[in-house]
Amino acid sequence: MLRRLRLATGGESHGPGLTAILSGLPAGLAVDFELLGRELARRQHGHGRGRRMQIEADRAEVRGGVRGGATLGSPVALWIENLDWPNWRRAMDAREVDAAFAELRRLKSPRPGHADLAGGVKYLRRDLRDILERASARESAARVAAGAFAKMLLRELGVELASGVRWLGTIGADLPVPAWPEVAAVDDSSPLRAIRRELEPAMVALVDEARAAGDTLGGAVTVIAHGVPVGLGSHVAWDEKLDGRIAQAMLSIPAVKGVEIGAALAASRGFGSVAHDAIELGPAGGLRRATNRAGGLEGGITNGEDVVVTLIKKPISTLRDGLPSVDLDTLEPAAAQYERSDVTALPAAGVIAEAMLALVLADAALEKYGGDSMAELLAHLEASRALERAWPARG
Amino acid sequence: MLRRLRLATGGESHGPGLTAILSGLPAGLAVDFELLGRELARRQHGHGRGRRMQIEADRAEVRGGVRGGATLGSPVALWIENLDWPNWRRAMDAREVDAAFAELRRLKSPRPGHADLAGGVKYLRRDLRDILERASARESAARVAAGAFAKMLLRELGVELASGVRWLGTIGADLPVPAWPEVAAVDDSSPLRAIRRELEPAMVALVDEARAAGDTLGGAVTVIAHGVPVGLGSHVAWDEKLDGRIAQAMLSIPAVKGVEIGAALAASRGFGSVAHDAIELGPAGGLRRATNRAGGLEGGITNGEDVVVTLIKKPISTLRDGLPSVDLDTLEPAAAQYERSDVTALPAAGVIAEAMLALVLADAALEKYGGDSMAELLAHLEASRALERAWPARG
Amino acid sequence: MLRRLRLATGGESHGPGLTAILSGLPAGLAVDFELLGRELARRQHGHGRGRRMQIEADRAEVRGGVRGGATLGSPVALWIENLDWPNWRRAMDAREVDAAFAELRRLKSPRPGHADLAGGVKYLRRDLRDILERASARESAARVAAGAFAKMLLRELGVELASGVRWLGTIGADLPVPAWPEVAAVDDSSPLRAIRRELEPAMVALVDEARAAGDTLGGAVTVIAHGVPVGLGSHVAWDEKLDGRIAQAMLSIPAVKGVEIGAALAASRGFGSVAHDAIELGPAGGLRRATNRAGGLEGGITNGEDVVVTLIKKPISTLRDGLPSVDLDTLEPAAAQYERSDVTALPAAGVIAEAMLALVLADAALEKYGGDSMAELLAHLEASRALERAWPARG
Amino acid sequence: MLRRLRLATGGESHGPGLTAILSGLPAGLAVDFELLGRELARRQHGHGRGRRMQIEADRAEVRGGVRGGATLGSPVALWIENLDWPNWRRAMDAREVDAAFAELRRLKSPRPGHADLAGGVKYLRRDLRDILERASARESAARVAAGAFAKMLLRELGVELASGVRWLGTIGADLPVPAWPEVAAVDDSSPLRAIRRELEPAMVALVDEARAAGDTLGGAVTVIAHGVPVGLGSHVAWDEKLDGRIAQAMLSIPAVKGVEIGAALAASRGFGSVAHDAIELGPAGGLRRATNRAGGLEGGITNGEDVVVTLIKKPISTLRDGLPSVDLDTLEPAAAQYERSDVTALPAAGVIAEAMLALVLADAALEKYGGDSMAELLAHLEASRALERAWPARG
Repeated sequence: MLRRLRLATGGESHGPGLTAILSGLPAGLAVDFELLGRELARRQHGHGRGRRMQIEADRAEVRGGVRGGATLGSPVALWIENLDWPNWRRAMDAREVDAAFAELRRLKSPRPGHADLAGGVKYLRRDLRDILERASARESAARVAAGAFAKMLLRELGVELASGVRWLGTIGADLPVPAWPEVAAVDDSSPLRAIRRELEPAMVALVDEARAAGDTLGGAVTVIAHGVPVGLGSHVAWDEKLDGRIAQAMLSIPAVKGVEIGAALAASRGFGSVAHDAIELGPAGGLRRATNRAGGLEGGITNGEDVVVTLIKKPISTLRDGLPSVDLDTLEPAAAQYERSDVTALPAAGVIAEAMLALVLADAALEKYGGDSMAELLAHLEASRALERAWPARG
Repeated sequence: MLRRLRLATGGESHGPGLTAILSGLPAGLAVDFELLGRELARRQHGHGRGRRMQIEADRAEVRGGVRGGATLGSPVALWIENLDWPNWRRAMDAREVDAAFAELRRLKSPRPGHADLAGGVKYLRRDLRDILERASARESAARVAAGAFAKMLLRELGVELASGVRWLGTIGADLPVPAWPEVAAVDDSSPLRAIRRELEPAMVALVDEARAAGDTLGGAVTVIAHGVPVGLGSHVAWDEKLDGRIAQAMLSIPAVKGVEIGAALAASRGFGSVAHDAIELGPAGGLRRATNRAGGLEGGITNGEDVVVTLIKKPISTLRDGLPSVDLDTLEPAAAQYERSDVTALPAAGVIAEAMLALVLADAALEKYGGDSMAELLAHLEASRALERAWPARG
Repeated sequence: MLRRLRLATGGESHGPGLTAILSGLPAGLAVDFELLGRELARRQHGHGRGRRMQIEADRAEVRGGVRGGATLGSPVALWIENLDWPNWRRAMDAREVDAAFAELRRLKSPRPGHADLAGGVKYLRRDLRDILERASARESAARVAAGAFAKMLLRELGVELASGVRWLGTIGADLPVPAWPEVAAVDDSSPLRAIRRELEPAMVALVDEARAAGDTLGGAVTVIAHGVPVGLGSHVAWDEKLDGRIAQAMLSIPAVKGVEIGAALAASRGFGSVAHDAIELGPAGGLRRATNRAGGLEGGITNGEDVVVTLIKKPISTLRDGLPSVDLDTLEPAAAQYERSDVTALPAAGVIAEAMLALVLADAALEKYGGDSMAELLAHLEASRALERAWPARG
Repeated sequence: MLRRLRLATGGESHGPGLTAILSGLPAGLAVDFELLGRELARRQHGHGRGRRMQIEADRAEVRGGVRGGATLGSPVALWIENLDWPNWRRAMDAREVDAAFAELRRLKSPRPGHADLAGGVKYLRRDLRDILERASARESAARVAAGAFAKMLLRELGVELASGVRWLGTIGADLPVPAWPEVAAVDDSSPLRAIRRELEPAMVALVDEARAAGDTLGGAVTVIAHGVPVGLGSHVAWDEKLDGRIAQAMLSIPAVKGVEIGAALAASRGFGSVAHDAIELGPAGGLRRATNRAGGLEGGITNGEDVVVTLIKKPISTLRDGLPSVDLDTLEPAAAQYERSDVTALPAAGVIAEAMLALVLADAALEKYGGDSMAELLAHLEASRALERAWPARG
């Protein structure tokens, strides 16, 4: 849940397009349209993606909240047109659908792992397309567009974000949590955006193998925020802790079923004497950390180290041959229906994770610093930093 | 973030007591005071706990929202007195503290892993006790008390919860995700509430070893909700997905730095063909699952299977000998100060996790079924179940 | 603040269009596109409106959340194109504006009564157009479109809404609060939608007089919801009281500066013995009220009587000749700039008030009854009504 | 709805006491315990109050969030003991009530104007005491205590609040909206805290007359905040407008059924040319207003003028002789039961209104300025003011 920013998205996967409204940004933020476009392109890239990613080059049109290249303080309204809409209109039109055509597109054998069945029961829909259309990962394009604005804001505060694939299947699964230099160096044009470039060929081969077998692959992605101010989030209430807010955002990404902050898994398997980050004096007199096992968060508060988050992602649920399921019309066993899909969307998950982490961090920063304009936000930040430098003498 | 329920807690670890206000419960819920007391006792139990757990038997007094053994629909106000308060009053009084006494109790060498340093900078406090008092795990007693009410409500809906220690250090770390029968059978009176009872002796020995060394231990806890209705949470918006809401709640528990829903870690290391749960016809004609790798959640919605959540917990940050730190007065290296603490609080973490999961599930159930009284809630549930049974024919 | 529904709107008055996202509607609500269009038309109608109302016939396109004429349970995304956009693009484009053209359109002498000056200081904008564009009443078109969906939902629950002008200037200001039959009979095609049709000629004359003088007019509008279930809102917490939630919604309508529930003003000037509504037995054995001075709300809860709300509206702040102001460039006295405007927008305010009241009531109904689909919502409502009929025997 | 602050209250009127948790205050706020006590005393004062006000001198105990006279940044937990609890325990105990005693205290003839009937149906309670206990104005003591903290914070920002009775019955009902000097001069020790002292004798006589007749009286209270910064609240979204947020807070006060910002009622009855506040140059070069008809709010944003709010209050609903009602046991006509009550609580309503307005303004200030400590908040405020002084040159 965001607290000062608010993000609403709407639109079905094969509807006319995606709408997003992001409220709470200060006025006077210079909008980097190139960044906006690049983030959407990054989401679409990756070895192992299905056909859809090739036909569509997503473009976000800004329809509110921005004038002459800068935000106004009013809600930013975004529109991402679905270029494939004409082919789907007869099945998806808001007013009237062509019954025969819709029946052809109907999903009636729910896919294990997807929202199909639980969503069908919840919303009492017979055509499970009514569920899958919104449960589709397509929605994440709207979040990436909104997240690009959070990135622009964070950049002004000195915060950068990067991500990469940490493991794919078993490849890379035993390596330690990566750090900023490695993740910042990930090559966006590489087929899988692997953090360890030397693992990429084996990963690509595994994807090809899975595709040949009609199978899909799980994995993990690490996202890091660098240059994060001290003091975002709070220990004072359970729902203000930043770890939890980050975790919610991460598990809202399709197929993400787990999250690790810093080196939590290793820490959980060992002793306290080697699990924490010694506090020491830096050369300039300030305090610094010898390590960053905590992933930049202690007690639900950022401690100034990099915020390091790993997302655990299950394999995509749509398999070419269909997992065992049931036909809802006949109530007979049937293979789950196939809906155009990917072998893995891990590289995209990293991009979405950057967007979501950026939104959570920007939200927490606005909460701490306030500010209705960038000038005010930056003046507040500067004032806060002066107080922090004088602490503990002053506190 | 809860949506229909609201939980606020207040109070410092060594203050007069803890206050909690839980809003949004229906009227007419029979309050099980025995359960309320038992949950607080369960939180205090466990091998590896420090002295504090022995001296205090927490008792929650109900000071609002309940009359004659049943809820009124108004906020439930709870009070948990701190029996140690007379010994701390001089250092912690709201109006005036005894400066010399407070100085003795002052924390000035922040503990790595704790909120001490980040919180000190954030709130500009010189005495880090001002941070640790609220960041302390003591606050979780208030959540356990509130969670007991959520458990009472869920019980009326047929939902039970249980938890246990899945691994401690490396002991048990390689075993698969446990299922309901194992976790429901955990013996609350066992020293560590291990899910695999045969691992308990080795775990106890490891705790003793760590205590002897002045060290602490990490581990993992699995919490399961059984009998969960289909359709809690939603795929329609990122912040309505139940996985994310559960993850936030779990990472709000002290020292929890990771979460796994179902068998996410194993799934992330393999193929889609073995990662999902086949849909099949049950004997009574309904649909059921062959497995529960998804941990009861697909697309952010409960699917009727057990909700299975594992919490990854780092070792407690307070070590007897103090990790390397800095004295804030002298800005010289110093060992982090010691504050009475445990070797491991894993058994307690399970109890807190039950409370938090109960709150999230009760919240989502109230969102779906509505209801201002238990009679209304149950009538709604019955009406919903009739519709679900008739689906897909009706939907 | 809405609690289960969520409404976000975006877009500037002279931008490409308005965007709205309404989340939280159940699936399976039949969408009445004719109603949607009619509500937008009603908002544009009225004697005393400026030129803009004539050139634009607003049309809301549904771009998400609806398929084949029924809601899906996912967010409803709406788009209302601004037909005048080509004429404004050079001044309002998100990427780049034509500096000279924008300067021509710049607002630099703030209008007393508008957000211009306070907004300019808050967001540190030199061109007050950056404020006025979002502060404009044009945004209410998005709310009316969203409110139409709330009306569709309420209609299924048996709730209807109507509104009319109660007074204009002094005309009608001394008459008692109108009741449902009068307000339901208001003629939408009449020039001012006056509740007392006999006052309409005098009102029209007053508007004409004001227009001739370059002046504007205040007034009041009454909106009534009829057929409202008992038990919406709650007394248990200050922010759950429905009166307050309605009041917030009403004061969010441009130029509305006051609100009266039922006959509050008269009641405030008299004795308790004549201010309340006697409870009596109805012919069918149920309880009913002899009067409805409370306007359907007691203790923050609907009591089953009509919800009666009067909005107190100040005159429109834009006057042809410009109130005394200051030129921000020269810091010399200057008349406030003129921006195309109306003499009165009272008839529209009623339509917007219906939309906002519908949203608040639908929100409260969903909170009480829950339901992810209309079938479930209606089954819950039926179950609740059965319990209410059996009360007090059962309660 | 508050946005950065959060206020939860719990407790029944005749329960053991009231609990409040106020979250979101910065650390380092000096707590004025004398002010806290005085505000509670002010709420209890007033001619026309019933016996309860005399027997109880409310005292708020701070049980969390404050140490040594300053806030910690953690939630402030408050406890107000009910001194009359021993006399009520048998009827109100959380665990068990004495059935015979509770039956004596049972409310079964609902009072018109109160939550009794609507609440009874909503929560399905047979004993309407289960409703009235929480619907009672007693709960406002908890809000006044919380509001005292908001006042302390605002005082640091240079904001003061005052209130007084504007009219009682018809006495004073035709006078114009009062301004700060008049309201700030209200004598708290006067019997009715009338704004126009010369009206007080007539008001007192009217109260005495009403009491003699067993009747109650309505009226209106004006509350003013002085020294309010420019830029609180926003025009950009319907639920961010400060007028609406204030209106919700005001209508959450018992018996308040209407609200007027500034001189809204007069403005609604006249022309625009005399309804707004001319902008002019002040002697120091800044901009100022010739009048304050807008009550300090334009476009939902504070404009730096005094925030002026009038609350319209209906007469208290509990009359000595009981309005016509129905006995729920017999379903026969019966007079509404009497529950100890006042003739008028207008003076108290002003105190509660100050508390609620303080909470809303503090909330909006924290939203704009951020800040986790008072030092940070004040540094941000100073930085913001420097930017505002440089505007419009800089913006």
